[in-house]
Amino acid sequence: MKPYAEMTKEELTAEVQAVQKEYNRYQALELHLDMSRGKPCREQLDLSMGLMDALHSGDDMTCEDGTDCRNYGVLDGIHEVKVLMGDMMENNPDNIIIYGNSSLNVMYDTVARAMTHGIMGNTPWCKLDKVKFLCPVPGYDRHFAITEYFGIEMIPVPMTPEGPDMDMVEELVSSDEAIKGIWCVPKYSNPQGYSYSDLTVRRFARLKPAAKDFRIFWDNAYGIHHLYDIKQDYLIEILQECKRAGNPDLVYKFASTSKITFPGSGIAALATSDNNLVDIKNQLKNQTIGHDKVNQLRHVRFFGDIHGMMKHMEKHAAIIRPKFEAVEEIFDENLTGLGIGEWTKPNGGYFISFDAMEGCAKEIVAKAKKAGVTLTGAGATWPYGKDPKDSNIRIAPTYPTLEDLKTAAKLFTVCVRLVSAQKLLKEMA
Amino acid sequence: MKPYAEMTKEELTAEVQAVQKEYNRYQALELHLDMSRGKPCREQLDLSMGLMDALHSGDDMTCEDGTDCRNYGVLDGIHEVKVLMGDMMENNPDNIIIYGNSSLNVMYDTVARAMTHGIMGNTPWCKLDKVKFLCPVPGYDRHFAITEYFGIEMIPVPMTPEGPDMDMVEELVSSDEAIKGIWCVPKYSNPQGYSYSDLTVRRFARLKPAAKDFRIFWDNAYGIHHLYDIKQDYLIEILQECKRAGNPDLVYKFASTSKITFPGSGIAALATSDNNLVDIKNQLKNQTIGHDKVNQLRHVRFFGDIHGMMKHMEKHAAIIRPKFEAVEEIFDENLTGLGIGEWTKPNGGYFISFDAMEGCAKEIVAKAKKAGVTLTGAGATWPYGKDPKDSNIRIAPTYPTLEDLKTAAKLFTVCVRLVSAQKLLKEMA
Repeated sequence: MKPYAEMTKEELTAEVQAVQKEYNRYQALELHLDMSRGKPCREQLDLSMGLMDALHSGDDMTCEDGTDCRNYGVLDGIHEVKVLMGDMMENNPDNIIIYGNSSLNVMYDTVARAMTHGIMGNTPWCKLDKVKFLCPVPGYDRHFAITEYFGIEMIPVPMTPEGPDMDMVEELVSSDEAIKGIWCVPKYSNPQGYSYSDLTVRRFARLKPAAKDFRIFWDNAYGIHHLYDIKQDYLIEILQECKRAGNPDLVYKFASTSKITFPGSGIAALATSDNNLVDIKNQLKNQTIGHDKVNQLRHVRFFGDIHGMMKHMEKHAAIIRPKFEAVEEIFDENLTGLGIGEWTKPNGGYFISFDAMEGCAKEIVAKAKKAGVTLTGAGATWPYGKDPKDSNIRIAPTYPTLEDLKTAAKLFTVCVRLVSAQKLLKEMA
Repeated sequence: MKPYAEMTKEELTAEVQAVQKEYNRYQALELHLDMSRGKPCREQLDLSMGLMDALHSGDDMTCEDGTDCRNYGVLDGIHEVKVLMGDMMENNPDNIIIYGNSSLNVMYDTVARAMTHGIMGNTPWCKLDKVKFLCPVPGYDRHFAITEYFGIEMIPVPMTPEGPDMDMVEELVSSDEAIKGIWCVPKYSNPQGYSYSDLTVRRFARLKPAAKDFRIFWDNAYGIHHLYDIKQDYLIEILQECKRAGNPDLVYKFASTSKITFPGSGIAALATSDNNLVDIKNQLKNQTIGHDKVNQLRHVRFFGDIHGMMKHMEKHAAIIRPKFEAVEEIFDENLTGLGIGEWTKPNGGYFISFDAMEGCAKEIVAKAKKAGVTLTGAGATWPYGKDPKDSNIRIAPTYPTLEDLKTAAKLFTVCVRLVSAQKLLKEMA
């Protein structure tokens, strides 16, 4: 089929009629499918059921240094889980704090602490007239929700396949003292699945922020979440790079096992410089006596070491790779050449980013919803939920079964075609 | 033996010499005992090892409403754990939010939220010139650490066996708009083991605060932590009482299973009014996707229901009751009639509060430390760590073995006698 933009009014009208028929067929199926969030599917969760057998009532519950993991104490995590998470994050265990079940919570708390107490002796953000964050777009809605909640002004920065537009980042960060941070998902980014290039990471490490308390919020959520054995992205380790560049304190790096074991019942961690660690622990000691050490021990006993964890990730990939491939195949088959949408083909992570024709995303999502397929809300990938082009849609292929996913993906392409053709027709009128 | 105050200089000198000899004998033992924190002992932790068998790899991980507890979601906790914690806290499950592993963390976050966003539409505390909290003394050092960390001015209010001095509380709360909260451990208080009387609770529920955003921080940490079968304190349920008094939004009530199952690996909860819940969830949804539901399910499967939990608490009591009794017996035997100290005899909780002669607490704690027994730092039970009379010492009998505890308690009485006699002698000189 030829590009919609080259069709005559008659051709487009015929296309709308044909696609509408297809859409009606889907509507009659009364689907209830969810492609809205990056949730692992049941089979993925089953992979970690061994966690439930990792600790028994007869087991020794002491960790390497003799601490009874069942009692109070150990503010920043037991040593062996620091080693495991350190290997996973490519950081020194001594530069890691182990937290509770949610890295989002760690990020929230990091912003909250900066608001009330400032970073390393600088003025608390709540005492400043204006605090701003850079937000690579499209990006992760829950990041944006945190900064929005704290009244932080969000400035969109366009993403490229190499990472955020670094000319713009450098320009803004070096010229505006009110800019205190930037949200990054540097590997298999949410939603595009892009990984920052070497040059991008090196430029990040060499930023010269006007604000002394500017920090990069480096959410490495998908660090080991590859889809393929060979076709893997490689990301330069940012803490090392910052140290080398003479900017050791520039980064807070976050990670978790949420999409490795159980979302909501895993382990979150933060890696950062010695100075930042002192600053953070000075707060953390007032917030808690310590996080869940039994769950830390459980994870260590389950995985053994990083090799056990990497083997485990291969099993995840085997389950979700066919889902990504199915979506890509269906998109290719039904949309290629029509000039009404572009999408990413990531090597890892949890999402595919779809860019529809301008002004079509909301309508596409609404149409899919009406036919029983829930997508991430259009606009969600932008600060304040406002995509100025109304174009970006995040596709989350992992949660539905492969069969359901195929149905949902096909319906999605039908919605894209219908909405696009109708829009072009309207523009002709 | 007669009261020290009635002794002649010669008698006191002889006493000092005798007690010093005893002290030296203890020092020679090279003890390493810890009575500093309210930590359960090993035998208590062993009681909950069944938790480790409560969920196996073959088990169904869905909760009553069909939610897979292994995946993301459920911001405020699964229903069945709300029921269990609701029964424990004597609150409606619908008025409960289930959190992570630490009620201290919940209290911290509650203060942090009030700082940055205010309570129910009121001015964020960080925008106010002055924020004050009332602190019943002696009290819990980690409470005071939170308010100190946020720069909140702490005003000590004397505790009585009936609870805080309510004349003073009413007077202060109704006259000063800067007073935004009060820290309470209403049952088996930390450190005295006092429980608030009916009248105290009713007066709390009927406070007329000058500040619309005044809240009672009701940390019911020891709600079911009785030492005896019959000799149990009864505490009126505060949320109900506030509702009845027309002050439904006055209280945040906190609890956890930290001293029921594993400290640091249990479940924390907050109970409060519908209005407060809406206010809190509006923040919480930005902080996390949800807390550890697998651990919630594990606790429900382990206990079954509140009856299982109460049976479990009887086992705790059987282990720690002899420890409290041993301390009381040793104190009675070695200190009664000397007029150099008073101590509480609680029916529950984790502590005994000891009041030495004025100006002696620090020296007693230091002497015990020198002989290898670590006590809670003198002053810790007061805001800013400053006990104006240098008199109060918190005794935590649960952690050491019974034998060790007896040694530590005896040494403690030796230290009290030595320091008191020396002080009186010095005053004669």
